[in-house]
Amino acid sequence: MSATPHPESTLAPDWKTIREAHERIAPLIHRTPVMTSQSLDAIAGARIFFKCENLQKTGSFKIRGATNAIFSLTPAEAARGVVTHSSGNHAAAVAYAARRRGTHAWIVMPSNAPSVKMQAVKAYGGEITFCEPLISSRAETCARIERETGAVMVHPYDDNRIIAGQATAAKELLEDIADLDALLAPVSGGGLLSGTALGAHGMRPGLRVIGCEPQHADDAYRSLAAGQLQPLEKSDTIADGLRAPLAPRTFAILRQHVNKIVLVSEEEIIDSMRAVWERMKIVIEPSSAVAVAPLLRVNGVASLGLPPRPDGQPHKIGVIFSGGNVDLASLPFSRQVRV
Amino acid sequence: MSATPHPESTLAPDWKTIREAHERIAPLIHRTPVMTSQSLDAIAGARIFFKCENLQKTGSFKIRGATNAIFSLTPAEAARGVVTHSSGNHAAAVAYAARRRGTHAWIVMPSNAPSVKMQAVKAYGGEITFCEPLISSRAETCARIERETGAVMVHPYDDNRIIAGQATAAKELLEDIADLDALLAPVSGGGLLSGTALGAHGMRPGLRVIGCEPQHADDAYRSLAAGQLQPLEKSDTIADGLRAPLAPRTFAILRQHVNKIVLVSEEEIIDSMRAVWERMKIVIEPSSAVAVAPLLRVNGVASLGLPPRPDGQPHKIGVIFSGGNVDLASLPFSRQVRV
Repeated sequence: MSATPHPESTLAPDWKTIREAHERIAPLIHRTPVMTSQSLDAIAGARIFFKCENLQKTGSFKIRGATNAIFSLTPAEAARGVVTHSSGNHAAAVAYAARRRGTHAWIVMPSNAPSVKMQAVKAYGGEITFCEPLISSRAETCARIERETGAVMVHPYDDNRIIAGQATAAKELLEDIADLDALLAPVSGGGLLSGTALGAHGMRPGLRVIGCEPQHADDAYRSLAAGQLQPLEKSDTIADGLRAPLAPRTFAILRQHVNKIVLVSEEEIIDSMRAVWERMKIVIEPSSAVAVAPLLRVNGVASLGLPPRPDGQPHKIGVIFSGGNVDLASLPFSRQVRV
Repeated sequence: MSATPHPESTLAPDWKTIREAHERIAPLIHRTPVMTSQSLDAIAGARIFFKCENLQKTGSFKIRGATNAIFSLTPAEAARGVVTHSSGNHAAAVAYAARRRGTHAWIVMPSNAPSVKMQAVKAYGGEITFCEPLISSRAETCARIERETGAVMVHPYDDNRIIAGQATAAKELLEDIADLDALLAPVSGGGLLSGTALGAHGMRPGLRVIGCEPQHADDAYRSLAAGQLQPLEKSDTIADGLRAPLAPRTFAILRQHVNKIVLVSEEEIIDSMRAVWERMKIVIEPSSAVAVAPLLRVNGVASLGLPPRPDGQPHKIGVIFSGGNVDLASLPFSRQVRV
């Protein structure tokens, strides 16, 4: 019996754990570029630094947490394979990381998952098990596979190995651009946002961290306002990566480390996505657009209510672009010609 | 009377002219990144290095030539303003460069030009004059504006200042990746392709330069095959940047410096554009896709018939992505769901 607590038994990964995660995964992932756009800066009235996880391996930040979790396994654990549930980017990331580790990945996907996401999982060698499109059905199917195969569960966000991995994106951004005034990231289950806050505060204690959430899936906003975890009542947002509920673990980290949650409308998500595609010439998915939308409002950065910079210069804002996986056959941009 | 020939009187800009052009424009444009993609490399069976002029100011390489031409003007010439005709990227580039030089730009556009292109010209302060959608009408309208205003003509490609500017993209790519086996670029009027060949051969005499052209606008292919300039008989291609005819000047440079022209189908253009958006997460316009399409065929790089590399490694191929300006409201990707 060891006296050292297992990382899973503490609430949040500490800075040392995050630095170790970064050392573990750095050789296996891209150090994604930080991009800028003069025309979006002009709209926002700020200098924005975009951490482009849309250009990350498998097309999203999810590969950070998945790689950290799967490469943290002991050889005996790795030999058993891994299991997870996800309808999207985490599924592809676990399949990819498992193949690189040389182990098997069982991926539980809802039967209505987009076919492009299923294809990505298959292309990376993952074994898909379909379940009913209910959160409860996902967990039950995972539990059954765990029992039957002995596979190790790799939860999409309620897992400190995952959170520590996701924290490395903010760590890299702060390594590149030290003097940000605030950092914006989207929030869904809270893996990215809690990791972003921990990674940012490891580099810069006290840096303002702001979560961005669709009005149509607003459980993080309501939970922080109420001071206790609220259920996800609806998730009919175009931001298909942001339809999961917070977990107690991620909620607790957000309460401690996140300054506020800003809600954005579906129209703002689509307009922001379009602005980024048109002006920056990069493909981001709707979930990424959620994190820049507050800056593209009429009042721009002023809507965030930040104090002025000591140097009197425009604010410097970091934005995490979470991913770039979209189905090009069903984009939301055609409404203008159909009118 | 000077004994020095004006650059316009010689057929092609020499290497010194190209280096001077690069010094002139480098502070005014982006040094665009060279991107790679493991999944496209796997399809092609080669290592591809993409020069991302879609991430260039104004969204295309055209700003290189336009900036070189407009910043080459004497103060007296610049005071007269500039005039050009273009339905697309050259129009926006001239408007942008003229504003930076502090001079006026008259832009002749066909009455059926896409509204997004007109908006870009207006946003950069250009003054649009509409003409009939005929090549002859464009030239006549430009000539009239020259007579009436004294403005200096900046032709989209039949101009050595323009060609020298476009040559700087290939020069930068070769500076970054020296040991390419071949360099691919799209061809329309031939400004980019002739510049690419001159820039490449300034850096690496003898480097294989291959032009890529839509089957539906194949005058360069037919002209090189026939050994004399052939008329553009049709231009009904989705690659809206590649609908212009070669000029005698660009044809002569291509004959001397380009190894061959490869034709690509409309379906190949759309599929290649889609592959780049999906795999690289960057927005390229159809004209850019034309230059990667030959590498994404079933035989990949083998279809180009290159000799093996001396080191036995996979071929290293440069591709110029010419631009990223697309109308997001009318993309060609929806055909799959509409079937």
